[in-house]
Amino acid sequence: MKRNIIVRILVLFVAMTLAIEAQAQQNGAATPKSGTNSREVPARLIPVPSTVSPELQAVIARPLSPALRLVPKTVEEWRRIVAIKSEQNEPVFNQLRKLFPVDIESETKGGVKTYIVTPKSIPDENSKRILIHLRGGGYVFNAGESGMGEAVLMAYYGRIKVISVDYRMAPDFPFPAALEDSVAVYEEVLKTYQPRNIGIFGTSAGGGLTIATVLKLRDMNVPLPGAVGLGTPWADLTRTGDTLYTNEEIDDVLVTYDGLLEACAKLYTGSSDMKDPLISPVYGDFTKGFPPTILTTGTRDMLLSDTVRVHRKLRQAGVEAYLQVFEGMSHAQYIIVFTSPESREVFQELALFFQNHLGR
Amino acid sequence: MKRNIIVRILVLFVAMTLAIEAQAQQNGAATPKSGTNSREVPARLIPVPSTVSPELQAVIARPLSPALRLVPKTVEEWRRIVAIKSEQNEPVFNQLRKLFPVDIESETKGGVKTYIVTPKSIPDENSKRILIHLRGGGYVFNAGESGMGEAVLMAYYGRIKVISVDYRMAPDFPFPAALEDSVAVYEEVLKTYQPRNIGIFGTSAGGGLTIATVLKLRDMNVPLPGAVGLGTPWADLTRTGDTLYTNEEIDDVLVTYDGLLEACAKLYTGSSDMKDPLISPVYGDFTKGFPPTILTTGTRDMLLSDTVRVHRKLRQAGVEAYLQVFEGMSHAQYIIVFTSPESREVFQELALFFQNHLGR
Repeated sequence: MKRNIIVRILVLFVAMTLAIEAQAQQNGAATPKSGTNSREVPARLIPVPSTVSPELQAVIARPLSPALRLVPKTVEEWRRIVAIKSEQNEPVFNQLRKLFPVDIESETKGGVKTYIVTPKSIPDENSKRILIHLRGGGYVFNAGESGMGEAVLMAYYGRIKVISVDYRMAPDFPFPAALEDSVAVYEEVLKTYQPRNIGIFGTSAGGGLTIATVLKLRDMNVPLPGAVGLGTPWADLTRTGDTLYTNEEIDDVLVTYDGLLEACAKLYTGSSDMKDPLISPVYGDFTKGFPPTILTTGTRDMLLSDTVRVHRKLRQAGVEAYLQVFEGMSHAQYIIVFTSPESREVFQELALFFQNHLGR
Repeated sequence: MKRNIIVRILVLFVAMTLAIEAQAQQNGAATPKSGTNSREVPARLIPVPSTVSPELQAVIARPLSPALRLVPKTVEEWRRIVAIKSEQNEPVFNQLRKLFPVDIESETKGGVKTYIVTPKSIPDENSKRILIHLRGGGYVFNAGESGMGEAVLMAYYGRIKVISVDYRMAPDFPFPAALEDSVAVYEEVLKTYQPRNIGIFGTSAGGGLTIATVLKLRDMNVPLPGAVGLGTPWADLTRTGDTLYTNEEIDDVLVTYDGLLEACAKLYTGSSDMKDPLISPVYGDFTKGFPPTILTTGTRDMLLSDTVRVHRKLRQAGVEAYLQVFEGMSHAQYIIVFTSPESREVFQELALFFQNHLGR
């Protein structure tokens, strides 16, 4: 009997809730008061997903790095952190190079330092094609050869020549130095290659810079590249995208916006407006001939929102745009865990995309 | 001086962390001990996103419904909850019908109850096409006309005839009754329409059932439909997908797996194996001629993982598959918040997809 009463109360409660919901739905959209409606999400234990590769599981199982919580206060502190990261890149890059053999040559193009990455063999269909690579690292980290692992992976899997741009970075060179460099290299490449045979791609800050470069070239009336690859693009440097909150402490790589990420955003922006479409290109206009685009992200990525917001803007503008989202993957992890099958899959999809969308 | 020491300690700490990370990376993948490596994610305040429409913001700002935490214990309790939900559906469905005028007729097809939804005008290119709709509701809820709002939206936006299958459901009819019904209707439709002119689609349980239906038809050597639409498909009824954890209490619609969701999974599965590919079709084989597919989900969706896992399996099998992920959107919210621009965008993309991929 007691049980029956509890059930009746429960049913009544649910009925009331559903009734309130239905009413709210009929009333339509009342604009919520901003700031007053944050949801309290309780503390949780989140297991290592069984649905990703063992390689990715091993990385997810590790404790979160405290490095991302750091906020350098002086140029001196920035330089030290940059130097540490650079030193740490070296052995990882050497391991990557052993696994994915390619040739690399340093070359100055349009006054900008670049690395030309050439795979061991290039099929005929790719002989007149080239990809321009813009590296990630928050517009601060990953200068030099050891910061361009992504270009090696792309050249290897795509069997296509890649030119990686060692663009200038903060703290010495904030916006728009990086953009000036990427545009200069593109214009230089344009002297040798047909625009439709040129692809441009990058991840994180490199993905954001890729979008900004295309928008800038369009505004300059320069012929646009044939295809674009955006890896979890940092398309909004402000704390706006929803997954900056929902995936906070869940993303293994970025961890939080509060620390190094916000610090990089401010350092790169300098005295400019952080919502300038050439800094936060999600606020740009994608309607005038943006090339076919592939976008890559993961379910744990704090820039999942940036990626899908750009994808929607491209689709709203009628652009041919393909989205791929990888299970359990954090920000840019397909570059970091380059021994994983997920990494291979990302670059094989990119290779297929460029194969299908670039001219010959 | 003191400040300088703190900076040095901090830098040393970060250097050590990065060094440990680099070492772990070089050591490659050690299989993590299962269960021992759950990550503790602290309690957080998650604001209503400014990046979604006011209509969606208003819904996200509401408190979570306790209805999803309920676990009915007896068939009697299930029936009550089903009846309550059904009553609540009525006024919402009436509002939807007013906003999206179509004609609806009840008809028995292959021994199964269906609703034929006909838009006010059908363009020539759609005159020989039809879409089969399988509704969502955890294989328990949303029986009858008021549970098929999605079919109305699709017919309206797509200007195409839709036949919505009022398939049998638990508790009275667990697996495989629903599948028998969807297959029977497809075979009946096949008597009047060319297979390549038939599309099949559904959301949530309806999305999972859509996949299961295609896999079953293929195993029966029945000619497959021309195109498939999967709305956040419930492709894995077990508690496996990563976003079942990461988006718990963040998804407004499903809220948690622990309550009604798991109860529905068990009720539908009955004495069968929950990992049977016809119950949890993410475990199915997609290699043999699966038709072109569009998949829809949102960044807050607890079935984001199910959706992207199916997308990857389709792509791995070489299937033409398009993924769309909406910012800040919870499970199936494009059907629930049908006045939102996000809902319109979802169905316009579906309409375009079927237009491009169905025969005439």
